[in-house]
Amino acid sequence: MRFANSQSLFRRAAAVIPGGIYGHTTPAATIPGSVPYFAASGSGCRYTDVDGNTFIDFMGGYGPMILGYHHPEVEAAATAARQLGAAFNHPTSLLVELAEKLTQRIDFADWSVFAKNGADLTNWSLMVAREVTQRPKILKIRGAYHGTAAWCTPGHGGLIPSDRADILEFPFNDIPALEALFNFHRNQVAGLILTPFHHPAFADSVLPTPEFVAACNRLCRDHGALQILDDVRCGFRLSADGSHSVFGYTPDLAVYCKALANGHPLSACVGRTPHKAAASRVFLTGSYWGDPAPMAAALATLDIIARDNIPARLTALGERFVTGFLALGEKHHTPLVASGPPAMPYVRVADDPSFLRTQALCAAAIAQGVFLHPHHNWFISAAMTEADIADALARLDRALASLRP
Amino acid sequence: MRFANSQSLFRRAAAVIPGGIYGHTTPAATIPGSVPYFAASGSGCRYTDVDGNTFIDFMGGYGPMILGYHHPEVEAAATAARQLGAAFNHPTSLLVELAEKLTQRIDFADWSVFAKNGADLTNWSLMVAREVTQRPKILKIRGAYHGTAAWCTPGHGGLIPSDRADILEFPFNDIPALEALFNFHRNQVAGLILTPFHHPAFADSVLPTPEFVAACNRLCRDHGALQILDDVRCGFRLSADGSHSVFGYTPDLAVYCKALANGHPLSACVGRTPHKAAASRVFLTGSYWGDPAPMAAALATLDIIARDNIPARLTALGERFVTGFLALGEKHHTPLVASGPPAMPYVRVADDPSFLRTQALCAAAIAQGVFLHPHHNWFISAAMTEADIADALARLDRALASLRP
Repeated sequence: MRFANSQSLFRRAAAVIPGGIYGHTTPAATIPGSVPYFAASGSGCRYTDVDGNTFIDFMGGYGPMILGYHHPEVEAAATAARQLGAAFNHPTSLLVELAEKLTQRIDFADWSVFAKNGADLTNWSLMVAREVTQRPKILKIRGAYHGTAAWCTPGHGGLIPSDRADILEFPFNDIPALEALFNFHRNQVAGLILTPFHHPAFADSVLPTPEFVAACNRLCRDHGALQILDDVRCGFRLSADGSHSVFGYTPDLAVYCKALANGHPLSACVGRTPHKAAASRVFLTGSYWGDPAPMAAALATLDIIARDNIPARLTALGERFVTGFLALGEKHHTPLVASGPPAMPYVRVADDPSFLRTQALCAAAIAQGVFLHPHHNWFISAAMTEADIADALARLDRALASLRP
Repeated sequence: MRFANSQSLFRRAAAVIPGGIYGHTTPAATIPGSVPYFAASGSGCRYTDVDGNTFIDFMGGYGPMILGYHHPEVEAAATAARQLGAAFNHPTSLLVELAEKLTQRIDFADWSVFAKNGADLTNWSLMVAREVTQRPKILKIRGAYHGTAAWCTPGHGGLIPSDRADILEFPFNDIPALEALFNFHRNQVAGLILTPFHHPAFADSVLPTPEFVAACNRLCRDHGALQILDDVRCGFRLSADGSHSVFGYTPDLAVYCKALANGHPLSACVGRTPHKAAASRVFLTGSYWGDPAPMAAALATLDIIARDNIPARLTALGERFVTGFLALGEKHHTPLVASGPPAMPYVRVADDPSFLRTQALCAAAIAQGVFLHPHHNWFISAAMTEADIADALARLDRALASLRP
């Protein structure tokens, strides 16, 4: 498999873009030299890079493509809305329909707002929690990703001390640490923000213990702090009505994004009636946020997710994939470790603290036409069939064989 | 002119959205009861609301629709790119082409990055300035709009003291105030952020004095601070190569957004080679930022803006419109005051500190099918013809007549 065009384009990119490719799609975060750097087109659960290599895609654009590239119903809805126009002086009726849809779908949701990035609304949710409580401090999980704003970016550049003066971190699933923070900062905590399960980069995924979920619910309630569920990555993949229902969280605010509109740029934050007036006092806007096409895509995507029970489908496909992958690891004497829910699995080589063997495995998978990320959870696509999973496993069998000394 | 469907939809919206409609398109910011609340479709320089009323549009979605709704070349380019796919695991070659285009087009630009919202990159530009200088403080114009992040939002809800601990404000065009801030906070100022001209809401627009521009250039250079031009609203409307060239600014970073892709969600920040390494250290990413369709739209839009000399066209149309409007004010004994460049004019009733007479004028204009905003600068559309301007002026003649006691 050759990546000559990717590498040539990257040299052009490096001349006119800091780092060549920035953010989560930078080759530096994957396996430079062994991965494509630029995509050309996608269809269903496969995409083709600029060298003509085609991959069975287990990343789906890092989450958005839950139904696969070019889902005909979603694209038809988005295209019809695009015919109406783009940025107007007013929203369209799709804003109302989508807010109604989310409040009907999500049990605790009484209202909704929409933006483009997940981070637009994780940032806003902190301000809403502060406006509701008139308190400054936010509790957050160490290593959790909520965007690239200064209060939460995983990067190190450009930060100043005041950025995180009121952000307090603790480890996922650590009830005593959470309890200690609430007690030490009594009447100062505006909110707790967390993802439904912990899916850090460069580490295994961790599901919440039932005791941790109960503690989050109890402590937020007892201390009068808002529970903010960052469901950007998981939302509508684990359950058609939001991931809180899977684990038993009782959020006050929840943010959705990636799977919401099958690749069209849209995010949503939902909340409860007691916080609606405060939410209306936290100014929120963007030039393109009324754009009807992504809202039409979201209405179609949400309907399909419920109609076709997509979360169950993703789970079944993911279980088949992970089980098969682990069995192949045993066959080839390369012990593998799986973590995360089957719909969003992560598999790495055991006893691999440097990730070098996991990188080699993913590079071999990519060489066989299966796109896997060595340091980030994966995403099963509803466009996959059992035959696609079997195809992927057959390729991974060859990939594992190629790794033998 | 009836707004029954708008008002009915707004009642539904208010049930499921804080404030009903939030942000810059909220009716509360215009003239509740006298304006449409929801758009249905647009074409060229006109749009139709959900009651079937059609308007000659002097807002263009608050800026994005520089070439008008459904510009055929832009939409053809975006649609072709959309066929390739949306959110991929990698950018497409359009990222490189667009970065090359901007660095060729904008004289001081050596590199570029892209996001969705203008605010994604005004926020990031502050972090880049801090990373370059290893200093915390940012100078900003009082009343300037740079987004809804806590450091700059015009809203009042959800703020805590640490949000603006390192933000220092001064009045536009006030050289002594700017000089005093630089001197008082010597070796502490990372950057100065400002818009090319001052276009606050609820006030006249103010062009920079040549002395103020020279002082911004000199003081940033002498104090080793970055000059950040927020060209989100003006960029590519006043000049095809960025608004700094119109006024003589020498920015280190400039942010573009609204007119960049004729309504498709995209923003850009450009900068200089000495800051490129620092920029690469400030993490920046979003789920949809590699989406090829808006980049294809931007390439087409930028080509058309240069090919058809759109800024000159907007200026000529705007001059014709403003001159005609002022003459109508004289004719009807309603003295009007115009401010801002002709391509982005703002006209209000003279001696109207409460804006009540200006609101009445805009309501009358809307009743005659001309959409004007009473408290925000307007945007001339390149889709307008001289006949459209004449049509708008004929309607404004009737609007002014209807205002007579």
